[in-house]
Amino acid sequence: MDNLFSDRIADVPRSFIREILKVAIDPSVISFAGGLPNRNLFPVAELRAAANRVFDTVGQEALQYANSEGLLGLREYISHRYREKQGLEISPDNILITNGSQQGLDLLGKTFLNRGDDVIIEEPGYLGAIQALSLYRARFHPVPITDDGMAMDRLREVLATRKPKLMYLVPNFQNPAGITYTDQNREAVAELVQGRNILLVEDDPYRELRFTGTHQTSFRKLLPDQAILLGSFSKIIAPGLRLGWVAAPARIMPKLIVAKQASDLHSNHFAQRLIWQYLADNDIDSHIRTIVQVYSRQQQSMVRGIKTYLPATVGHTHPAGGMFIWLTLPQGISSKRLFDLAIQDKVAFVPGSPFYVDRLETDTLRLNFSCVDEETIGIGMQRLGRAVEKLLEQVNG
Amino acid sequence: MDNLFSDRIADVPRSFIREILKVAIDPSVISFAGGLPNRNLFPVAELRAAANRVFDTVGQEALQYANSEGLLGLREYISHRYREKQGLEISPDNILITNGSQQGLDLLGKTFLNRGDDVIIEEPGYLGAIQALSLYRARFHPVPITDDGMAMDRLREVLATRKPKLMYLVPNFQNPAGITYTDQNREAVAELVQGRNILLVEDDPYRELRFTGTHQTSFRKLLPDQAILLGSFSKIIAPGLRLGWVAAPARIMPKLIVAKQASDLHSNHFAQRLIWQYLADNDIDSHIRTIVQVYSRQQQSMVRGIKTYLPATVGHTHPAGGMFIWLTLPQGISSKRLFDLAIQDKVAFVPGSPFYVDRLETDTLRLNFSCVDEETIGIGMQRLGRAVEKLLEQVNG
Repeated sequence: MDNLFSDRIADVPRSFIREILKVAIDPSVISFAGGLPNRNLFPVAELRAAANRVFDTVGQEALQYANSEGLLGLREYISHRYREKQGLEISPDNILITNGSQQGLDLLGKTFLNRGDDVIIEEPGYLGAIQALSLYRARFHPVPITDDGMAMDRLREVLATRKPKLMYLVPNFQNPAGITYTDQNREAVAELVQGRNILLVEDDPYRELRFTGTHQTSFRKLLPDQAILLGSFSKIIAPGLRLGWVAAPARIMPKLIVAKQASDLHSNHFAQRLIWQYLADNDIDSHIRTIVQVYSRQQQSMVRGIKTYLPATVGHTHPAGGMFIWLTLPQGISSKRLFDLAIQDKVAFVPGSPFYVDRLETDTLRLNFSCVDEETIGIGMQRLGRAVEKLLEQVNG
Repeated sequence: MDNLFSDRIADVPRSFIREILKVAIDPSVISFAGGLPNRNLFPVAELRAAANRVFDTVGQEALQYANSEGLLGLREYISHRYREKQGLEISPDNILITNGSQQGLDLLGKTFLNRGDDVIIEEPGYLGAIQALSLYRARFHPVPITDDGMAMDRLREVLATRKPKLMYLVPNFQNPAGITYTDQNREAVAELVQGRNILLVEDDPYRELRFTGTHQTSFRKLLPDQAILLGSFSKIIAPGLRLGWVAAPARIMPKLIVAKQASDLHSNHFAQRLIWQYLADNDIDSHIRTIVQVYSRQQQSMVRGIKTYLPATVGHTHPAGGMFIWLTLPQGISSKRLFDLAIQDKVAFVPGSPFYVDRLETDTLRLNFSCVDEETIGIGMQRLGRAVEKLLEQVNG
């Protein structure tokens, strides 16, 4: 039987990450490879109570089909929180509930991208976005990021020669690099993009996980007509419920809703009721403070580990929040080679290549600190230090 | 700002059904317009108990990210049920959990269709399939269905002149027509398709809702290498949990899983655990018997209503299960005109046109009997009878 696959799917490889996570699942391995929130912090008892309340008060309703936009009450909650926390005025009508922000990306690809359309993406960039938009045959134009945000000269070059439809950014505690765009960088990006025929997709799942410093301005405020916000409950409540949202300019919503309807009719109705009930009955800010305290301590432990066990020639970012630190190895040595040695020493991470659109080898890697306790992080970093040492000996020997 | 929308989304209209359901929401209207299962039959107490058990035993796990394929235990359950109920051997490895079968359709479009690829669809056909596959720019070739199944001469014609990649069928208690393919028709279809480079998509959400007669053979048995089964818990447990599955030949699974991963990483993990727990703790066959008893009585009430209140010139199907009856009006008169009159008489249905790929006016319409009790069905059919009478007077007067 001949090949029936579509062009879009034919040459997408299975996620490299999946293979890594398989290795990292060995319980003797200390894994900094995942991208998961810490399950010990999931509000299990509170969600259980909320679930019972949903069953008792609106059980039949919550188990029935619902509208494609998502539960109005939940969209009102999100709208209210944007106003309260960020001074953003976003009507519930301009919010669409999705299966995590991953589905938001898929719907944006479906709604905007024809084959070969130009898309700007960060380098390194979120691999879920690379995968989702690849399937709509985006032509990616990576723009490097620094500690401050986008590399403006490269962004100017791309905008001078290309007509990108979408520009995908994670400006707060970026995945994978952990960096946060400064206000100055945001303003420079916004000024350059303003008025062009381009939508800026601001993926913002980590914003509430800030350890130090103050919040920067959302692109949605700087570019109200051009910025599309992606949000998620995955990092502040629980990812297994698969709920996130897209907040977009009004003119885009009808088509986004059609895309959602064609994709799966609507997101899990019960889960929407459950999260809405949980938010009504609990102090989410207090819960977020708990997460922040734990992640912050773990991040500090990882930074101490870097300073103690890694040679000073290994570069690293200084995340003020989120879940990730990004390392750059000296002398351009391969992080995949390091991975092989590290696994022998029972410590895992993600080599940088899946975060680039076009590289098989890189000298960079991602460390996750959300799922490992402080003490174990120290042990893991010591192991990583040994592996780096061995690799440098091999390279220089 | 210029139009940035993709070609695929630019010309998809918002669902006509949505507008109809808005009218039908008036509580004084008796609605045969929906396609919903009856919420009074949702096992709320049993799902509540199962949810508590999930929270108590695997709470953290169920709230964490999970794999894209779906919960292994649930896939094993589905595999086992196929063996037990239909004698089908389908490995759990060849089952992918999706957000209802609607997402199954979306993933099949994503995995197989390039712009302009030929797709065979029933006429009338399931509008969710028309919408999902339209977004991948399928070129539809409708094949009429009769009380026995596909119109074989038209199917032969299409296969003689076209190279369809996909062929989409709902062989049991079809939506919208309510008909079921005979075994003879299935065998004729299978013989024609066998060995061609074409995948037959057998969407089977209603199979368990049989009121009378015996089950027919699945296309999966007749065409093991070419048939893809879509299944769903929506009609036998509850649709708000958005869980269904795709069961496909092994060679297709890796690409389908990539498509799923890019679309939303995985389906709601908690909901998968919840349904699996519910299935472990309850006798689903006994629950299905209850649904069947209720729907069967309501279907009989609707058929009595047709015979009592509608002129004999109105044609109707004789569903042996499912949720729908299909009417054909005499003299080719418009079911949209009838809809306008019926709404004045406070009864609603879905005019036929959204179930065709290319018609704005039809003389057909869909009646749903799952959500209205027997007595109210009688009243509704009396109202519909009056509306038909008025319309015939207008047409003939």
